[in-house]
Amino acid sequence: MNAKHSSPENSAYRELERTYLRLHRFEHARAIVWWDQASNMPAKGNAARGAALAELAALLHRMRTDPELGARIAAAEHEPLTELERANLREIRRDWRLATALPEALVERRELAVSRCEHAWRSQRPANDWQGFLGNFREVLAIAREQAERLSQAVGLARYDALLDQYEPGMTSAELERIFGGLKGWLPDLISRARERQSREPVLQPVGPFPVEAQRALCERVMRQLAFDFDAGRLDVSAHPFCGGVPEDVRVTTRFDTGDFLPSLMGTIHETGHARYEQNLPRAILGQPVALARSMAIHESQSLSFEMQLGRRQAFVRWLAPLVAEAFGAQPAFEPDNLYRLVTRVEPGFIRVDADEATYPAHVILRWEIERALIEGELEAEDIPAAWDERMALWLGLDTRGNYTDGPLQDVHWPEGLFGYFPCYSLGAMYAAQWFETIRAAHPDFDQRVEAGDFSPAFDWLREHVWLQASRWPTADLVRRATGRALDPGSFRAHLEARYLV
Amino acid sequence: MNAKHSSPENSAYRELERTYLRLHRFEHARAIVWWDQASNMPAKGNAARGAALAELAALLHRMRTDPELGARIAAAEHEPLTELERANLREIRRDWRLATALPEALVERRELAVSRCEHAWRSQRPANDWQGFLGNFREVLAIAREQAERLSQAVGLARYDALLDQYEPGMTSAELERIFGGLKGWLPDLISRARERQSREPVLQPVGPFPVEAQRALCERVMRQLAFDFDAGRLDVSAHPFCGGVPEDVRVTTRFDTGDFLPSLMGTIHETGHARYEQNLPRAILGQPVALARSMAIHESQSLSFEMQLGRRQAFVRWLAPLVAEAFGAQPAFEPDNLYRLVTRVEPGFIRVDADEATYPAHVILRWEIERALIEGELEAEDIPAAWDERMALWLGLDTRGNYTDGPLQDVHWPEGLFGYFPCYSLGAMYAAQWFETIRAAHPDFDQRVEAGDFSPAFDWLREHVWLQASRWPTADLVRRATGRALDPGSFRAHLEARYLV
Repeated sequence: MNAKHSSPENSAYRELERTYLRLHRFEHARAIVWWDQASNMPAKGNAARGAALAELAALLHRMRTDPELGARIAAAEHEPLTELERANLREIRRDWRLATALPEALVERRELAVSRCEHAWRSQRPANDWQGFLGNFREVLAIAREQAERLSQAVGLARYDALLDQYEPGMTSAELERIFGGLKGWLPDLISRARERQSREPVLQPVGPFPVEAQRALCERVMRQLAFDFDAGRLDVSAHPFCGGVPEDVRVTTRFDTGDFLPSLMGTIHETGHARYEQNLPRAILGQPVALARSMAIHESQSLSFEMQLGRRQAFVRWLAPLVAEAFGAQPAFEPDNLYRLVTRVEPGFIRVDADEATYPAHVILRWEIERALIEGELEAEDIPAAWDERMALWLGLDTRGNYTDGPLQDVHWPEGLFGYFPCYSLGAMYAAQWFETIRAAHPDFDQRVEAGDFSPAFDWLREHVWLQASRWPTADLVRRATGRALDPGSFRAHLEARYLV
Repeated sequence: MNAKHSSPENSAYRELERTYLRLHRFEHARAIVWWDQASNMPAKGNAARGAALAELAALLHRMRTDPELGARIAAAEHEPLTELERANLREIRRDWRLATALPEALVERRELAVSRCEHAWRSQRPANDWQGFLGNFREVLAIAREQAERLSQAVGLARYDALLDQYEPGMTSAELERIFGGLKGWLPDLISRARERQSREPVLQPVGPFPVEAQRALCERVMRQLAFDFDAGRLDVSAHPFCGGVPEDVRVTTRFDTGDFLPSLMGTIHETGHARYEQNLPRAILGQPVALARSMAIHESQSLSFEMQLGRRQAFVRWLAPLVAEAFGAQPAFEPDNLYRLVTRVEPGFIRVDADEATYPAHVILRWEIERALIEGELEAEDIPAAWDERMALWLGLDTRGNYTDGPLQDVHWPEGLFGYFPCYSLGAMYAAQWFETIRAAHPDFDQRVEAGDFSPAFDWLREHVWLQASRWPTADLVRRATGRALDPGSFRAHLEARYLV
């Protein structure tokens, strides 16, 4: 991206740019303070930290809903702008529209309800206390419905689509129906055939313990090979791994279990995908909305490109296996073929975050169908368990009746009022498959290079077609420019078939 | 302190309280982001971090200089307030007066000049480049003089006193003249007698290396015994050790040198004194100016209470010596008597931050005399080296001619435009001596208890008389209430004589 300006210093557009640069700087403070809360903060700091973060959030909301912004956006529409500036103005308008759609009173009510529900959920989940959860959750759902209604009016979309649009602009229920509807047709059969096939292959389990320092060194070594820039980021530990910080200083976290090194290793590879996207966003106009990551599904497509497309690929595992043996001492389970079987095991389970890539979409589609019905008023909070049990039985053959802990209480999203987010995970998996189909087509020697530790064909392509594009194009255009066609679940199906059925 | 309110919700006073609570929360974000910059941030994050911190600083300055604040302060004067609220209003008025005394243009000019001078100083100091430094420093000094003039008009004090008053409210040049003038009379003789005496005592140097992990464990163990609350704070590493964070979450830093464990250990004890003051500020009205640390000298009196009065005391060293031997393995240098000689060595040197407690005041008085003359216009920037050389020769018998690196270029204070801060270090040492004189008078068994690892007589007294008092009283009242008399350098002299001449 080129930062050349066409508009004069005192134009409405330039004024908007200055406001968004200030927002970027306050977001920087918020991101670092939030990371610190997750990675460093001692327990007694929590109340003061919560108050500080709320104060920053209120400041950012006030800045985003400043009535002058609307007038400036309207004025900027008539100013001569470069193509890039026009894209930035589009993103600014979107940000302003989302912020102003919700009256401050609703935002405050949501904060309170969500904070109460999420806090109680932390103990209700282990206690399997669905009834207690319902007491708070009904209010969260009522507010989410009102939020959906308000956003719907502001952006002219159906209610659930308006929520979805916050995370994945341009995506609609109709499109999800097409994509996920197709998946429902072929995925259950693929899962049973993959399991049938894997049941005939013996797998050795690695024998621990795996010391934390050896795990950390291995993760850092792999991150370096994945070209994570440690001069512009860090790896730390937190209870729930994430990729945070700011594009200029990306903070990856993981957690170590001395009994099993694969979750931290594969999780770190996953977060490194998010991290490299952030580290490679275009620098010239960083701070402007157009220079930020495109969407949640595109972000997830980066972590899944790293973890699923690259990281669980046979050629990658062949490169990785000697490093694992070096880190922990050789053992039969670290033989490349065995390690590959370990990281490609298909196994229906209760928990989404532990799911393999083949069964993962079932978890997502289940949540999507339920949350859409909740928002559209076709389902009430108390109907969730029955809808959940039915789908888990049908798609994964699991009986979840009465097990709320490992059922509808397992995710933080709903207690936090995040409706419309779940589809991004599976959309990301499909985008990732489509990226790699394109990359492999251009590089017949791709797997040989990966096995030799040369991942540059993937990274060069992602940098050019995704990272440096940031939010310049609507997602549909981004995908078409990158791969020559619209999002195509066929790439994902082909990927799964090649990996699990051939 | 009691948080009971006498004024109604909508009073001007309560409005001020709300503003200062918001300021406290933004200061929280700034403090954590600043700590992160010093302890965690990778190199490439620096530009974005600087911009984020500047944006926060600008926000805080705008809030502090809001014209409405002045009107509210005036209105609150006539409202019925508790004694505590009235003290808080006094501190709010002081904060507002200092903030509004400086026009925004001057603040911006200062930021630029200081940033340029400090940045260049980092390479000019090792290069001994005094002439290069002068090029930037003249502008910093000119701005400091203007700042002194403005503050002088706002607070009705002499120019240098107005700068001093920012860090040490109530302290004046006349008072410093009395205190430091006295010191100049007896300190040089005390130093030579102490050195003469120590020259007859053999001292064994500890033999390293001292592994970082063993040093860290020792520091943490000592911090625990000093009752640092690790559930409300942390120990980390930074290039320049400090105590930062927020009262609710105090961040102590140190640096480890495998060749010498004493700097990190004694430095950690020093910072733990700052930390316990912060951790024990009154909680009920935390966030209000009256609940913050009284002043820089009082803060320094806490770190020096821990490091000098307690930490280098013979009884403490007897308690400490077995822990040192346990951490690194026994060796003759860790015998209590030898360890005590090591931590009480008097040795004139060029560098203030490395100075022992007997020669330290000479470094401070030298800087105070020079910076006061600079601000009052009696000395120009180019006259500093001659004034420096003269005093170093006279007081410490050292020849510093031509050695700017270890002379006037050694401190960051002047390049950063901090004039009026240096006296706080030695005032802190004197307050600390006075606290401990009082504590020991009340506890004839003080040293026996210290040797047994029971520091509670000191901590209980400091908590009651200093920590929980926060900014409730002007410093002079605080000292009188705590010790029954005004600041008395005689306590400091008695302390040095007892430790070094008896």
